Amino acid sequence: MVDEPLPSGTDVARAMDLAIDESRHAQGASSPNPPVGAVILSADGAVVGRGFTQPVGGPHAEVMALREAGAAAAGATAVVTLEPCDHTGRTGPCTRALIDAGVTAVYYAVEDPNPTAAGGAQTMRTAGLTVVGGIRAGEAEVGPLRAWLFRQRHGRPLVTAKIAASIDGRVAAPDGTSQWITGPLARRRAHRQRATLDAIVVGTGTVLRDNPALTARHTNGDLRTHQPTRVVMGQRDLPDTAQVADGAAPLRHIRTHDPAAVLADLPDALWVLVEGGPSIIGAFLAADLVDEIEAYVAPVVLGGGPASVAVPDVTTLADARRFSLSAVETLGSDVLLRLSR
Amino acid sequence: MVDEPLPSGTDVARAMDLAIDESRHAQGASSPNPPVGAVILSADGAVVGRGFTQPVGGPHAEVMALREAGAAAAGATAVVTLEPCDHTGRTGPCTRALIDAGVTAVYYAVEDPNPTAAGGAQTMRTAGLTVVGGIRAGEAEVGPLRAWLFRQRHGRPLVTAKIAASIDGRVAAPDGTSQWITGPLARRRAHRQRATLDAIVVGTGTVLRDNPALTARHTNGDLRTHQPTRVVMGQRDLPDTAQVADGAAPLRHIRTHDPAAVLADLPDALWVLVEGGPSIIGAFLAADLVDEIEAYVAPVVLGGGPASVAVPDVTTLADARRFSLSAVETLGSDVLLRLSR
Repeated sequence: MVDEPLPSGTDVARAMDLAIDESRHAQGASSPNPPVGAVILSADGAVVGRGFTQPVGGPHAEVMALREAGAAAAGATAVVTLEPCDHTGRTGPCTRALIDAGVTAVYYAVEDPNPTAAGGAQTMRTAGLTVVGGIRAGEAEVGPLRAWLFRQRHGRPLVTAKIAASIDGRVAAPDGTSQWITGPLARRRAHRQRATLDAIVVGTGTVLRDNPALTARHTNGDLRTHQPTRVVMGQRDLPDTAQVADGAAPLRHIRTHDPAAVLADLPDALWVLVEGGPSIIGAFLAADLVDEIEAYVAPVVLGGGPASVAVPDVTTLADARRFSLSAVETLGSDVLLRLSR
Repeated sequence: MVDEPLPSGTDVARAMDLAIDESRHAQGASSPNPPVGAVILSADGAVVGRGFTQPVGGPHAEVMALREAGAAAAGATAVVTLEPCDHTGRTGPCTRALIDAGVTAVYYAVEDPNPTAAGGAQTMRTAGLTVVGGIRAGEAEVGPLRAWLFRQRHGRPLVTAKIAASIDGRVAAPDGTSQWITGPLARRRAHRQRATLDAIVVGTGTVLRDNPALTARHTNGDLRTHQPTRVVMGQRDLPDTAQVADGAAPLRHIRTHDPAAVLADLPDALWVLVEGGPSIIGAFLAADLVDEIEAYVAPVVLGGGPASVAVPDVTTLADARRFSLSAVETLGSDVLLRLSR
């Protein structure tokens, strides 16, 4: 089989970038399955099929890409962001589909750390295919697979805390008004991000005070394809008039103040965004359950009103939680600081 | 005279960049005079003299550069960041010095807006020199001359408010500890900046609580050449043990809560930095006397403690003061957001 013509290394690397891009369409929607992307390449390096993981129970990325390739899959090369799965779950193993389609080589980025699904590479090698892992592994790991890999490793979703504050760190004026501290580009990014999340967590206080919809919308107000579950934590009842109860996206009211209990109640979630208020973000921080902070800072001084985070029992500077700065993005007149552990 | 050989336009523009760099040495030290830089070019474009404005009573930049050039000034070209002055103050007019030295052409960046000093270009043209203004004017205006030009236009110093806060906008922990929220690169920049300022303003509260030195120091602790005046505003007495009273730099205790009164009491100051605390910055904002904000943000969550700015009588979001984002700088793990009106 190794004597068959194969696409060049450049073709494969470029196809992996395409596969990563494909996988973005699956982010959020594929959970709890990993958002995978796949590309089928003919011997001369032409893309003859693409696909991404469909929602639970639907075909995986490889099968979608093979379907698009059709007969052209025979003798072709598959490029996949994750090691193809080898087990029969709600769908058949992808390794089988690739072998049956006559694919002769499989390149993947990230090894499957999940013991029940792993072993795909070995199965395909035994069937005579050329199998190479690690292609663009770094890019794929920090891409759409990131939260899924995190969950495999830590047994809980990746948690990002979102702050949108004035330059003096306030999220609202003393009377509670807060729309809009940040500008349209920051809001658009936040909505695009929502469409890739599994859940957004707020406290009952935020619902009662601000009545946010927490849906992922396009600039024109239309709902985006994937909606995260709106999770409201806390004991207080939610009014029927709450926008989170409008049916536009799933709603979970979890009657607890314990962040760990909230995450445990979201077993299928890969990526959770904690939007506030300050004491909810503070509770996640105090429980050591914040992996990243995304802080949108607007060039506005309020001079009064609540700060973005309230952590119980903070006394001295030694109690500060230190993150590392991972990125700075300018969004119109706002700045987004991304911090990670 | 116009038939004499002159340096090329490229030589002149490059010399102006050098002159702007020279002028940086004068920033802060030359006040209330403008920090000017000058370069003398021979006909073939070689730099034969450089200079910058000396402290009050000392020679201006042109005279310093002419001295370095010596006999080479005859037939040479002068490149100066500001239109040479035409009046006799504590020193003689620079136009006279240039003409007497036999300079045949003068290029300057910014026109002198000061009516008592202006007219230099005309005087030199009358004397037969080639005189061209506006060279690199934009660069010079936002460079070291910026605060002086601001003072000419507005009759008061340029005021920058400095914030150094956690990502949740707090400048200290609840017990008052605040050293160090930001890292060494941010602190080094702050000390470099101090050496170019005329005054640093804090409240008596900051002195009594934090006892800062407010001097401009090198990383090894040595004092930098120029020290800003340490201005403490407020009614309370300062203890003899206060570091601001250590004699390492001038100290002014201005017994007022009125920011305008503080600025009026600094008639020679071109650039003033307001360092805090929160209510001092808030008072300057409320008085509409903040032209820029420099906010250092550290990747740290405090979760408790005072916010960086407290403005009296803020109620609703419409009371917010909106600035524009002019620059974002990364300083190690901290980010500096620079805002202007």
